[in-house]
Amino acid sequence: MMPHGTVEVQTGWLTGGVITAANLGELGEFGLIGALGSWLPAGPAVLIGIGDDAAVLAAPDGRVVATTDFVIEGRHFRRDWSSPSDVGHKAAARSLADVAAMGAVPTGLLVALAAPPDLPVSWLRGLTEGLAAECARVGASVVGGDTSRAPVVLLAVTGLGDLAGLAPVLRSGARPGDVVAVTGPLGHAAAGLALLSAGLSGPAELIAAQLRPSPPYDAGPEAARLGATAMIDVSDGLLADLGHIADASKVQVDVHSDPLIRTYCGDAVSLTDVLTGGEDHSLVAAFPPSVTLPPRWTPIGEVRPGQGVTVDGDPHPGAPGWDHFR
Amino acid sequence: MMPHGTVEVQTGWLTGGVITAANLGELGEFGLIGALGSWLPAGPAVLIGIGDDAAVLAAPDGRVVATTDFVIEGRHFRRDWSSPSDVGHKAAARSLADVAAMGAVPTGLLVALAAPPDLPVSWLRGLTEGLAAECARVGASVVGGDTSRAPVVLLAVTGLGDLAGLAPVLRSGARPGDVVAVTGPLGHAAAGLALLSAGLSGPAELIAAQLRPSPPYDAGPEAARLGATAMIDVSDGLLADLGHIADASKVQVDVHSDPLIRTYCGDAVSLTDVLTGGEDHSLVAAFPPSVTLPPRWTPIGEVRPGQGVTVDGDPHPGAPGWDHFR
Repeated sequence: MMPHGTVEVQTGWLTGGVITAANLGELGEFGLIGALGSWLPAGPAVLIGIGDDAAVLAAPDGRVVATTDFVIEGRHFRRDWSSPSDVGHKAAARSLADVAAMGAVPTGLLVALAAPPDLPVSWLRGLTEGLAAECARVGASVVGGDTSRAPVVLLAVTGLGDLAGLAPVLRSGARPGDVVAVTGPLGHAAAGLALLSAGLSGPAELIAAQLRPSPPYDAGPEAARLGATAMIDVSDGLLADLGHIADASKVQVDVHSDPLIRTYCGDAVSLTDVLTGGEDHSLVAAFPPSVTLPPRWTPIGEVRPGQGVTVDGDPHPGAPGWDHFR
Repeated sequence: MMPHGTVEVQTGWLTGGVITAANLGELGEFGLIGALGSWLPAGPAVLIGIGDDAAVLAAPDGRVVATTDFVIEGRHFRRDWSSPSDVGHKAAARSLADVAAMGAVPTGLLVALAAPPDLPVSWLRGLTEGLAAECARVGASVVGGDTSRAPVVLLAVTGLGDLAGLAPVLRSGARPGDVVAVTGPLGHAAAGLALLSAGLSGPAELIAAQLRPSPPYDAGPEAARLGATAMIDVSDGLLADLGHIADASKVQVDVHSDPLIRTYCGDAVSLTDVLTGGEDHSLVAAFPPSVTLPPRWTPIGEVRPGQGVTVDGDPHPGAPGWDHFR
């Protein structure tokens, strides 16, 4: 629905040149596309990268894992709290963690970016640095995207990955008797948000957990190799995400408060944070009891016959789910 | 950055039940996710579909083609002009055409959808019907997505596809002597937009070309098999998109007005529409002169040494590019 007689710009990202504009309005869309292309290096899985109608990635396994997530200013980040690089790291982490939670190795991201014309070019540069750096943690890269205009910064990030011969680890395979274990922080991103909301800037570890989560991506394929029966990344909160596993697997998951308190709680991190705080993008999985877990996996509960999620055997009076539309 | 103590909803799409709510606000996010899942059938390439952290699609070729595009209310469609099914068709077509323009067969779509709470459930139902129907034209399906809230309807659609053993057809392979040919309409979507803007509702074929483009997806792999040296889908306008091929291939493309006028112009379709109108998502490709083109491919020009795009040998005083940020 472009105006009659004009031409819409192409939607791939091209490689580009030197940037002299101060903001997105001065840069223009072709300039933005060129800039983004020149700032984003291509990784080993990229056969055809930024600059054509579509990217081509290696999918040596013969299957591709794919997921997409919004990252919206005011909802997932605030520009007065997050550096642009933070936003890039967080936007990449949301999708890369979903790929890892299937037991796959992330290979590439597609980034659709809408933004206001007064967005500084330096902010965009920081964003792409964060995206590229988070991708580099797993050998993935940004391979394409799209650009448009919006009143706030809005990203839709698609993550792609390869299973390397392993069966995908679903939410639906947990069985009574399985051990439930976590790797990565729990409740730290929520505690960091509470600190920021109170105008505090520390402890730094908790602020960083909110602004720049650092998921243990390689633990996803590790869990698949160990024989995990179910896995999910903790984006909604531990109880909510275990609820998804319990529902899909038609089992009950009982979590034990002792190891949770011992491992995750602290001065600024409550058990409620640990049980219900989202956005840590840690991995929680169910393993057959015979599996010897590597040290980074902390057993925190067990799978039982039944339904729903309990804490120390009792139902938890949990908070209702976050709902974007209510 | 969810509120402390609440849980964010999971971001996959689940299968769901009966819908009684009238709008998105009543339905809620979990309801929306369930509804979308239940309305969207899974196709043959879907190994793991809606309802887990990520989808898993077959990628039998060992490579995957991937592209993402925004489709934004007020920019790419208007709800008073387009039915919800139209929007679904158009949103799917934008990404599926990019996949086809690489010479690949589309296999799946990921759809990130943000919308206002007062959006009627019936509108969402129509949207998903359009998405699914357009996917079904090529045997693809919607395999996942994300949902969030926005003041307007906003989609970010990722298309995935398989090359089936063929080399991808890039923008960069056109050589002097190649024949340039098109399949699908040119200028019809732009002519339809002009009619709608003037308050007219016909000719129906041109209105439909704007509201519900119907790209010739299977012509993409066909062109690859025929040995096309370069290909692009006409989303920006013929001259603009041939300009991308000319730039990437370091050649000049000369288009001939005679076959364009004969084949595409009409009472409501001007040569300017044909040369500069976007959104038809037809395919334009360069072929070695030895190739015998099937009848649906119309030769419209040739590749020469040089640079840029000419019409009948002369530079075209073309309209400037559409720029979202200026």
